[in-house]
Amino acid sequence: MGVVIPLEDSKNKQASVKPLVDLTKADMERVNQLILSKAGSDVQMIPEVANHLISSGGKRLRPMLTLASASMFGFTGDAHVKLATSVEFMHTATLLHDDVVDESDLRRGKSTARMIWGNQASVLVGDFLLGQAFRMMVDVGSLDALDVLSTAASVIAEGEVLQLSVAKNMETTEDDYLSVIRAKTAALFAAAAEVGPIVAKTDKASRNALKSYGMNLGLAFQLVDDVLDYGGKAADLGKNVGDDFREGKITLPVILSYRRGTAEERSFWREAIEGGESSDQNLERALGLISRYGGLTDTIARAQHYGTIARDALAPLPESPWKAALLEIIDFCIDRVS
Amino acid sequence: MGVVIPLEDSKNKQASVKPLVDLTKADMERVNQLILSKAGSDVQMIPEVANHLISSGGKRLRPMLTLASASMFGFTGDAHVKLATSVEFMHTATLLHDDVVDESDLRRGKSTARMIWGNQASVLVGDFLLGQAFRMMVDVGSLDALDVLSTAASVIAEGEVLQLSVAKNMETTEDDYLSVIRAKTAALFAAAAEVGPIVAKTDKASRNALKSYGMNLGLAFQLVDDVLDYGGKAADLGKNVGDDFREGKITLPVILSYRRGTAEERSFWREAIEGGESSDQNLERALGLISRYGGLTDTIARAQHYGTIARDALAPLPESPWKAALLEIIDFCIDRVS
Repeated sequence: MGVVIPLEDSKNKQASVKPLVDLTKADMERVNQLILSKAGSDVQMIPEVANHLISSGGKRLRPMLTLASASMFGFTGDAHVKLATSVEFMHTATLLHDDVVDESDLRRGKSTARMIWGNQASVLVGDFLLGQAFRMMVDVGSLDALDVLSTAASVIAEGEVLQLSVAKNMETTEDDYLSVIRAKTAALFAAAAEVGPIVAKTDKASRNALKSYGMNLGLAFQLVDDVLDYGGKAADLGKNVGDDFREGKITLPVILSYRRGTAEERSFWREAIEGGESSDQNLERALGLISRYGGLTDTIARAQHYGTIARDALAPLPESPWKAALLEIIDFCIDRVS
Repeated sequence: MGVVIPLEDSKNKQASVKPLVDLTKADMERVNQLILSKAGSDVQMIPEVANHLISSGGKRLRPMLTLASASMFGFTGDAHVKLATSVEFMHTATLLHDDVVDESDLRRGKSTARMIWGNQASVLVGDFLLGQAFRMMVDVGSLDALDVLSTAASVIAEGEVLQLSVAKNMETTEDDYLSVIRAKTAALFAAAAEVGPIVAKTDKASRNALKSYGMNLGLAFQLVDDVLDYGGKAADLGKNVGDDFREGKITLPVILSYRRGTAEERSFWREAIEGGESSDQNLERALGLISRYGGLTDTIARAQHYGTIARDALAPLPESPWKAALLEIIDFCIDRVS
């Protein structure tokens, strides 16, 4: 009755972003040109600040999603390039504002823009990029795409405020946390993937498939990100282990460990997170508790759950190299922790 | 050869915002309803922060401009109400971000949102309102109006960054200063007035007339605002006299007084503005120099110049109560200092 899975069929190699990178290579060059052009301004500080972040080595996953989700339906033209650039600008604007809100010193191992040019420039250049993003969307002229992306802009900001209001509150539930990451991260992944089929003028079912894929991929991505903050390959990614802990940010590894802990341990968590007692010694203890209660492995299991939903969302679509590349991205996002 | 102007024909009473308020009263009630509804969110902090600023007693000049500039062409419907609300949200978002950038404690005599809820909430709720503004524009469905307002959003942010880069630089010229206020203030007035004729589907000439009216009204408005900061009715408006001075902001009264002063006086200005020596004693001296060199009266003369351009922009349009109300607003803005 047992089934022997041959080694070559099992997941015996790390999933890679490479197929998606290769397929979108030509269009991503157009995106990169457009980024440089639309982040330009006679006001010198604007391209300086924008390019600092834009050139800091992000994977540009979101614009690749937009390109792939249009190209897989045979779309050629430039609307998807403009929308992909808009998506990247929305993301960059969010990062600029996030670093101000979180008072972050480092992002991807480099000083944040606010450490170099100040909070003021970070807020205002973020606003500029958001304005430029909307101008490009208007230029494309699809009211459906505008609807999806402007709604995402509102939802992202709403999620960030929600995160602020649950910050340092240990009674945050897993559902509260999911509401936050659905809004602040997954909504943009969903919008990035949904505008592809919109400009490709495909059917509503395909549009919904890509939207669902993006949303669940985004949830998996953020869950893994929150795991990385407590270890794994954090150093490789230019992150400091324990940044979330020190900022009193409530993420799923903490929520699980808190809820599963003893009364004494819960009291420790409250002092550390709500009381701001985030010494290295307390971080050590937190890491120990997270490990004891399976905080990281179970967060990864949650990420796999959403990854499976993302995979099933694409199932009805015809096989193609694009679909295969998008499916591999799911594993790639999750494999970052393993 | 002399012409005697009878007293009743000369400008013998203060211009008033009342005709515009009366004409737009019914539609402004719809705007106010929409503001409340679109600033709403399940995330409690959002309506709290938004309503603090929205209910703080601004005149809502910008949305009234949009309503009037649509209604004067016979437009009825709800597109102008939605666009007027979008304009007010864009303005509110800018104020929230400005207060963070300027580190302001007071606005219109009340504590700023950032003093009550912190910089973080001010940045993020501003982002939310901007997102909601775009959603309403998309809902209206006019790509022309979207183009005008999204361009304004970029230009405003660009102007704010430009202001940041000329801040505390006494070599700022009147032209530099005009570039700043054209972008950060006048562009939104221009856009607010231009989208009226757009939704009313009137001719291009009328659209350009309203745009020019708005732009020049905005310049006059900001010039007068900068005069008010050095006196006049500043206290009535809940402003502290000398706020700009203390923040090292370069406005036209300062530019004129600096350029017209002696070498010793210019050295004083550099120490005060660039060196941040903004004691009450130095403010007293600055006020004395501004008075000696006609810094306020000549800034008001500049405002009158732009007011005249605004008036001439509307000249070709047929007479109507709407046109009369818009013309009176020019004098109302300038009369604030007299």
